[in-house]
Amino acid sequence: MDKLNLTKHISSQFNDEIEQIRNHIMAMGGLIEQQLSDALNAIAGSNAELAQQVIANDLLVNDWEIKIDAECTRIIAKRQPAASDLRLILTIIRAISDLERIGDEAERIAKVALESFSSAQQDLLVNLENMGRHVAQMLHDVLDAFARMDVEAALAVYKEDKKVDREYEAITRQLMTYMMEDPRSIPKIMNVLWSARALERIGDRCKNISEYVISFVKGRDVRHSDEDSLEQNARS
Amino acid sequence: MDKLNLTKHISSQFNDEIEQIRNHIMAMGGLIEQQLSDALNAIAGSNAELAQQVIANDLLVNDWEIKIDAECTRIIAKRQPAASDLRLILTIIRAISDLERIGDEAERIAKVALESFSSAQQDLLVNLENMGRHVAQMLHDVLDAFARMDVEAALAVYKEDKKVDREYEAITRQLMTYMMEDPRSIPKIMNVLWSARALERIGDRCKNISEYVISFVKGRDVRHSDEDSLEQNARS
Repeated sequence: MDKLNLTKHISSQFNDEIEQIRNHIMAMGGLIEQQLSDALNAIAGSNAELAQQVIANDLLVNDWEIKIDAECTRIIAKRQPAASDLRLILTIIRAISDLERIGDEAERIAKVALESFSSAQQDLLVNLENMGRHVAQMLHDVLDAFARMDVEAALAVYKEDKKVDREYEAITRQLMTYMMEDPRSIPKIMNVLWSARALERIGDRCKNISEYVISFVKGRDVRHSDEDSLEQNARS
Repeated sequence: MDKLNLTKHISSQFNDEIEQIRNHIMAMGGLIEQQLSDALNAIAGSNAELAQQVIANDLLVNDWEIKIDAECTRIIAKRQPAASDLRLILTIIRAISDLERIGDEAERIAKVALESFSSAQQDLLVNLENMGRHVAQMLHDVLDAFARMDVEAALAVYKEDKKVDREYEAITRQLMTYMMEDPRSIPKIMNVLWSARALERIGDRCKNISEYVISFVKGRDVRHSDEDSLEQNARS
């Protein structure tokens, strides 16, 4: 995650407090990137110990959310920021909520690494891992876009989500076919399916954060817009 | 949803604005209850027309979120509320975000009603409907708890979520067994499974809102606590 460059968006009055929140978001974002990466590595290497570590570390993610949230509330109460500063704080509150949920999904994915798979099933996991790397990149990119409040970068993440959705659909079809051919594998493969779903949800949440970036910089709420009007808003 | 009784929690200064936001949350909550109820009725009656209506109406839910969100931002900027008033507004912002996501899940459930099911499969839907009624009651109760900022009622919803989780697990097992016995049904039954998952997520979000109520009234962030310490906090 790049250095968080929000300075140009705020009045000098509460620079210090924002500086601290900024360090905390970077720490939280870095932790969640690590959690997702560890969860994917745990699956790739059938590493139950690493998976357990991801599950345990989700508590740290939760702590960050509560901590940053409290800081944001305090800064609003204390500084009574004006319109744009206030919108920045509210944007941060929203973003950390999505980040925390991304952490929850990483924990769900890690749980799949606690299962043992046959070698035929291992082959199915390869596509999950590929989708995982794609989503991890999206997460990295959206954290950067957020740090720099970069509309173009946010727009790129927004568009990437469609590709992740297509990957998810392809994996779902493949897994369903496998289950139809080997019905006894259903309970196990269902867990792989839930992981794919968790990755798809992480993509959605990265897209949410990209919408917050665009909404904040453009001063217009672009959530729930269709892609064309969002792009138009972002570039106007 | 009961009349929203937040008055005792706010200073008289911005009563009027809060009154308006309150009416809007009630309208949004009522719409989402209707959406969930319609989605469940669409499944029960194989009513594709009703399902399409739920899907179309999700736009209205999104509009409410953006509208109430903007009102909350405006009221903070204009009134610069002190600690407790500010926490109330931030609680509202959080709650409407969960409500909007509940609307999304209702839309997902409605899509299942667009499928046609054999009579054996119809039997599987009965359990889904039962779970649906249970979750709809939870939604109703949490909206009431929110309207009255009632900690005991919120705590009851919080505890109900465990029962919903167990119902979800039972349905999942039943659906997996059915798929193992009739592998050709997998694609169709998967849709039922996604609906059960959507209901389980609605339960989670109702639980989130119950945590916001407890956190607000008690002035302590109880998110991510375990049940025992949450109950202790709620009752202290």
